Amino acid sequence: MKAKTVTVFAPATISNLGSGFDVLGIAIDKPGDIVVAARRREPGLSFSVKSDKVEVPSDPAKNVSAHVASMMLDELKPPFGVEMVLHKLMPIGSGLGSSAASSVAAVVAVNELLSRPLKRRDLLRFAVEGERKASGTPHADNVAPSLLGGAQLIRSYLPLDVVSIPILKSPVWVVVHPHVIVRTEEARSILPYMVNLSAAVQQWGNVAGLTIGLATGDAALIGKCVEDVIAEPARIHLVPGFVKVKDAALKAGAVGCSLSGSGPSMFAVATSFKAARAIGRTMARTFSRIARVQSEVYISRINFKGARILSIRSR
Amino acid sequence: MKAKTVTVFAPATISNLGSGFDVLGIAIDKPGDIVVAARRREPGLSFSVKSDKVEVPSDPAKNVSAHVASMMLDELKPPFGVEMVLHKLMPIGSGLGSSAASSVAAVVAVNELLSRPLKRRDLLRFAVEGERKASGTPHADNVAPSLLGGAQLIRSYLPLDVVSIPILKSPVWVVVHPHVIVRTEEARSILPYMVNLSAAVQQWGNVAGLTIGLATGDAALIGKCVEDVIAEPARIHLVPGFVKVKDAALKAGAVGCSLSGSGPSMFAVATSFKAARAIGRTMARTFSRIARVQSEVYISRINFKGARILSIRSR
Repeated sequence: MKAKTVTVFAPATISNLGSGFDVLGIAIDKPGDIVVAARRREPGLSFSVKSDKVEVPSDPAKNVSAHVASMMLDELKPPFGVEMVLHKLMPIGSGLGSSAASSVAAVVAVNELLSRPLKRRDLLRFAVEGERKASGTPHADNVAPSLLGGAQLIRSYLPLDVVSIPILKSPVWVVVHPHVIVRTEEARSILPYMVNLSAAVQQWGNVAGLTIGLATGDAALIGKCVEDVIAEPARIHLVPGFVKVKDAALKAGAVGCSLSGSGPSMFAVATSFKAARAIGRTMARTFSRIARVQSEVYISRINFKGARILSIRSR
Repeated sequence: MKAKTVTVFAPATISNLGSGFDVLGIAIDKPGDIVVAARRREPGLSFSVKSDKVEVPSDPAKNVSAHVASMMLDELKPPFGVEMVLHKLMPIGSGLGSSAASSVAAVVAVNELLSRPLKRRDLLRFAVEGERKASGTPHADNVAPSLLGGAQLIRSYLPLDVVSIPILKSPVWVVVHPHVIVRTEEARSILPYMVNLSAAVQQWGNVAGLTIGLATGDAALIGKCVEDVIAEPARIHLVPGFVKVKDAALKAGAVGCSLSGSGPSMFAVATSFKAARAIGRTMARTFSRIARVQSEVYISRINFKGARILSIRSR
């Protein structure tokens, strides 16, 4: 029996992870986007968006998930068309890989509808095209963990080489999303073009330590290694209250704290769910007090599954 | 029964490992230096060097191993003195951590003679002072693996933070030492002060991949991740024949190849001892043909033990 309707959830991701700027990302449990894709007689793609809170382009030519789904259909040429609905649940410009989650949900849903012609990992090249559309460059540090789960290293972009970090266990990650928008392009444009070799060495020492910490689940090691001496100093002014919120997180027991993606979301690393809840409350309260912005708090371990199929209906 | 005479071997090391400039190092089996330390009545240190091929300062004020041994004695104040002989077996200026091996052998020998007042890891701070004496900066990327074995990450220098990479297995490492001398200070002085952010990101993607490769023993991953886009391009002219030798190594089956330390030694990564022997022969032959220099070849897996006590005599 062939799938007629497929519903897929793709999770949010924390990319950069501080020191791992442009190369590391992990999947978390929530939030995420949902795509429902159904077969239809007419070839090609029809597309719509359902969302009650964010402004997302419903024009298929402008939406990343429609873009990547179209690319897949163009290449794979199934004998039917696809009607796709994006349930846009994630805030945009949040630093949580919102566009990546939409693209990933779309490619996984379309692949399933076509009876899985491609392996999960081979969907990556389509999903990164959504990132190219969203931000001008085919970044994979949100797409890869949303698609594959776990912690993913983008070792190289040309050619694209994604290495899955083998993970024994995960500390608890706190993500706080304050209601301000940071545009990825702007966050990128303020980065320095050149950096001190000594700062770069410090950063890759931290990246190597972070990699070991992720693999072994060593919260203290992860915590000290997320320290980012290159992108964070350039970006903190984009997030009102950043310094105070980070300070509050560390005082509340976080072993490390930095920007998620290019912000405004911030992540903190905790050694237990109890500690994580206290840290999340403190961070949200500090955002409210210092910057007068509301925020959402998400708490989870690393999501090892990545995008997952919520349902398949055959009729 | 207290040790009266202790003989310690400290192994050579491959630091930098290409992309892991200034932060990564592994211990190999050979070559290495040997220190023999014996108790004597008179307090303080007497020091001599035995070596039939290299010029090493036998003046205790100039020799790194005497320097670190003196520092230990000054701090620990044992009720006896130490007579120390450095059997300098390693070539100097080789890029194989020659001064580090001397310092490490000295601190392990003195510690053993004093009935081990310090843990192995706590000897690090003394051994790095030898590096400060040898090159002006307290580098630890040779000292840490020579002392502790395995693969060591110098995550941070201020404060010194050494993280041991948990290793499942090791590919085979080929080290070729051509008979030319590269002074560490010179190799350091020609490095750029600033680097492109994009090159730095490429480098830390490789460093993270290298860390995973070292942990899992994935030769192919290690091989592609040793690619160094920052220090190697600046340094290759210090080693006559570098480009041809690297090329020959890769053609002979090496999965990766770069400078060991700041050169002139080069290392290559092989998937078997048989392949390693062929690679080593080819590299040595190419050095001879292109640059008219002789070289030694060393082949081993990662040395997990580091410095080891060869003998203890109680009378």
